[in-house]
Amino acid sequence: MDILEIIAKKRDKKELDKEEITFFVNEYTSGKIPDYQAASLIMAIYLNGMTKEETTNLTLAMANSGDILDLSKIASTVVDKHSTGGVGDKVSLILLPLIASLEIPVAKMSGRGLGFTGGTVDKLKSIPGYETEISEEKFIENIQKIGISMISQTLNLAPADKKLYALRDSTATVESIPLIASSIMSKKIASGANKIVLDVTVGKGAFMKNIEQAEKLAKEMIEIGKLANRETVCVLTNMDEPLGYAVGNNLEVKEAIEFLKGNMPEDLKEVVFELGAYMMKLAGKGEDINNNKQLLLENIVNYKAYNKFLELVNNQNGDISYIENPEKFENVKYIEPVYAEKSGSIEEIDAKKIGELACFLGAGRLKKEDEIDDTVGIVLNKKVGDVVEKNEVLAYIHANDNIKLRNVLDELKRVIKISDKSVNKNRVVFSVILNCMKT
Amino acid sequence: MDILEIIAKKRDKKELDKEEITFFVNEYTSGKIPDYQAASLIMAIYLNGMTKEETTNLTLAMANSGDILDLSKIASTVVDKHSTGGVGDKVSLILLPLIASLEIPVAKMSGRGLGFTGGTVDKLKSIPGYETEISEEKFIENIQKIGISMISQTLNLAPADKKLYALRDSTATVESIPLIASSIMSKKIASGANKIVLDVTVGKGAFMKNIEQAEKLAKEMIEIGKLANRETVCVLTNMDEPLGYAVGNNLEVKEAIEFLKGNMPEDLKEVVFELGAYMMKLAGKGEDINNNKQLLLENIVNYKAYNKFLELVNNQNGDISYIENPEKFENVKYIEPVYAEKSGSIEEIDAKKIGELACFLGAGRLKKEDEIDDTVGIVLNKKVGDVVEKNEVLAYIHANDNIKLRNVLDELKRVIKISDKSVNKNRVVFSVILNCMKT
Repeated sequence: MDILEIIAKKRDKKELDKEEITFFVNEYTSGKIPDYQAASLIMAIYLNGMTKEETTNLTLAMANSGDILDLSKIASTVVDKHSTGGVGDKVSLILLPLIASLEIPVAKMSGRGLGFTGGTVDKLKSIPGYETEISEEKFIENIQKIGISMISQTLNLAPADKKLYALRDSTATVESIPLIASSIMSKKIASGANKIVLDVTVGKGAFMKNIEQAEKLAKEMIEIGKLANRETVCVLTNMDEPLGYAVGNNLEVKEAIEFLKGNMPEDLKEVVFELGAYMMKLAGKGEDINNNKQLLLENIVNYKAYNKFLELVNNQNGDISYIENPEKFENVKYIEPVYAEKSGSIEEIDAKKIGELACFLGAGRLKKEDEIDDTVGIVLNKKVGDVVEKNEVLAYIHANDNIKLRNVLDELKRVIKISDKSVNKNRVVFSVILNCMKT
Repeated sequence: MDILEIIAKKRDKKELDKEEITFFVNEYTSGKIPDYQAASLIMAIYLNGMTKEETTNLTLAMANSGDILDLSKIASTVVDKHSTGGVGDKVSLILLPLIASLEIPVAKMSGRGLGFTGGTVDKLKSIPGYETEISEEKFIENIQKIGISMISQTLNLAPADKKLYALRDSTATVESIPLIASSIMSKKIASGANKIVLDVTVGKGAFMKNIEQAEKLAKEMIEIGKLANRETVCVLTNMDEPLGYAVGNNLEVKEAIEFLKGNMPEDLKEVVFELGAYMMKLAGKGEDINNNKQLLLENIVNYKAYNKFLELVNNQNGDISYIENPEKFENVKYIEPVYAEKSGSIEEIDAKKIGELACFLGAGRLKKEDEIDDTVGIVLNKKVGDVVEKNEVLAYIHANDNIKLRNVLDELKRVIKISDKSVNKNRVVFSVILNCMKT
């Protein structure tokens, strides 16, 4: 097989077959195909697209390029949950213990955050003692023991995807739906689940800026799931403003604890329950979505989800005194309120900009090797649509550096926009797509 | 300036400005932009095309990436001639001494051949003693002394084109009209001529397989010439079968000598006179093309062109006894006739296949470092449209290796196709394009 013929075929808008795609992925991963030939092919794919079969074959080839986790020892059906990324997204911290409290096994491997979106692993690690890097055996053992384990991606999952993603990042070929879809699905398939609920975020703080694009991506991933024998449901959710109120590792853990105790911000609640109800459905624990939501709510109210979270933290060697007394997290130097300069309604809180400001304070990484400051971040006091009086608090900045604090203070006043007119709250869940049929 | 933004712009079908193109060419040539980013951009250019301004800016940036020859010491008007490549193409060997014999200065730098098309430099070098690698000063001095010099491309002309061409060759992005046009024109501009006659070959043995593509390429190059202040004329010629009868270095030199003595194969004559008449016109030596052809013919008949060729060879330290006694070239081991297996008319002699067979015998290079055997090749005895009797000679194979000879013998019988019906001769000159108006 010849890479030049493969490039020429895609260049000429012809369909690549399974052997050609697998050859490319394997030879590129092993270094036999150089970056410049891969770059040429990837640009041709970006511009000429891929059929569903091609995208599925690319996904499977990337999934098979490294380790594939075997979760069959845990249960015949294992549901995974994944988000395409957002700001203030502490959904996994809440939803997965909640799901586990319903006796549905949870085997979650998460990536670290990069750029303005925080990673679930970073949030878990911000709990003192919590071990995110454990062996595959220990991971499975944990799930068999307490029904849940949440760790960092330590295995060599989909290395082809890792290499191709880095190449795309440096050749202006990131925003391609077949390439994004295959990148996400290859990692999900390699991580062993056979049912997948995807939170496809849409808006200023998300990869997909509009609903049409998000729907296209969702349908592509569902189609891959179908062809790869992984039932997949996509929930399209709003990421125009941050989810919930807190942005920053410790701050988000605290908000998750509060949620599990029943203090649920409206938007976060809607996302958690929608995703949770579909996870239950895929796990065979209930066909009726509204009924499922009711069962999820019950396990919040009766503290079963909270207790499962405590159990998870304890089992991963985390210090549960922090969960039981969340004020222990409060060891930041400055907590500075941001006041409204006029009365009105909150019109916009750009999630991307909030993420970038939190990152600037130290809550995220700009480069892979950056250290994270778990304590810093931003806690909103208002959400889009809320009425605000002049001099009311819009948000609190948690910082350890006074100069950074001053910069963020100025910026936040511009980012949190106040309108004289009344403003509607943001819609939270746009749609659910399953089997390429919207509900 | 940021290469990622430049790639994204072309990816999104936007026009690149002069600064962006120049930045790319300079940074890529100096190695600051890696191959994979260049490959990505080149594929985007291949698929999304380039405007005339973009193509011109690319051409000029590549021309300016290395030395630019200054021919103003020779004359205010210097006409260059270039072919897009063919098999049996000894036109430069004949036409340039012929032009010089009309007191039009000729400053010709040629490339070496690669693949199935032979290079003019290789043909000149096959004359014992002929020096193709001389200094720029000596080159100019030669032209000032006898009106002509023909040498190999020793200067660092358009290094960006060299680097980009190698990349295109290994990323399936060769066949792009703006990229081919800018590649050819950048070298022509760097080599110092201000008027250019281009032999755009069309057919099985050429880059352009059909007239439409060739016309597009021709118009693109004329447009670049106009914007770069280099008047350019394109003559579209047939390259379905080899030009003339001989293919192979010594063999072609011999055919050129015979031509200069008045023994002119019909197709070769038509090409030489058409290109020559337009070179004269561009040099300001005659507006009337038919009259120019008459003047060219005169200088064949009166041996002025032949004598200029002798003078050229002598001046470059070549042994003119070989020109005066061409049988001195005949030191090949085997000369084997190929006989017709049936009577009929010659229907096809695929130029590319003939070129490949000659190359296989040793007449050309497959890799840059290959040695050439000057003596071997193929001499046709018939051309398309000729009537042939069974057992008549179709061609002679000149070989130094008996096994190769046997292989070529078998192949040639298949390549030279005989039809039972009568066949028309191939049209030789399809059209002349000047100022984007066909004549």
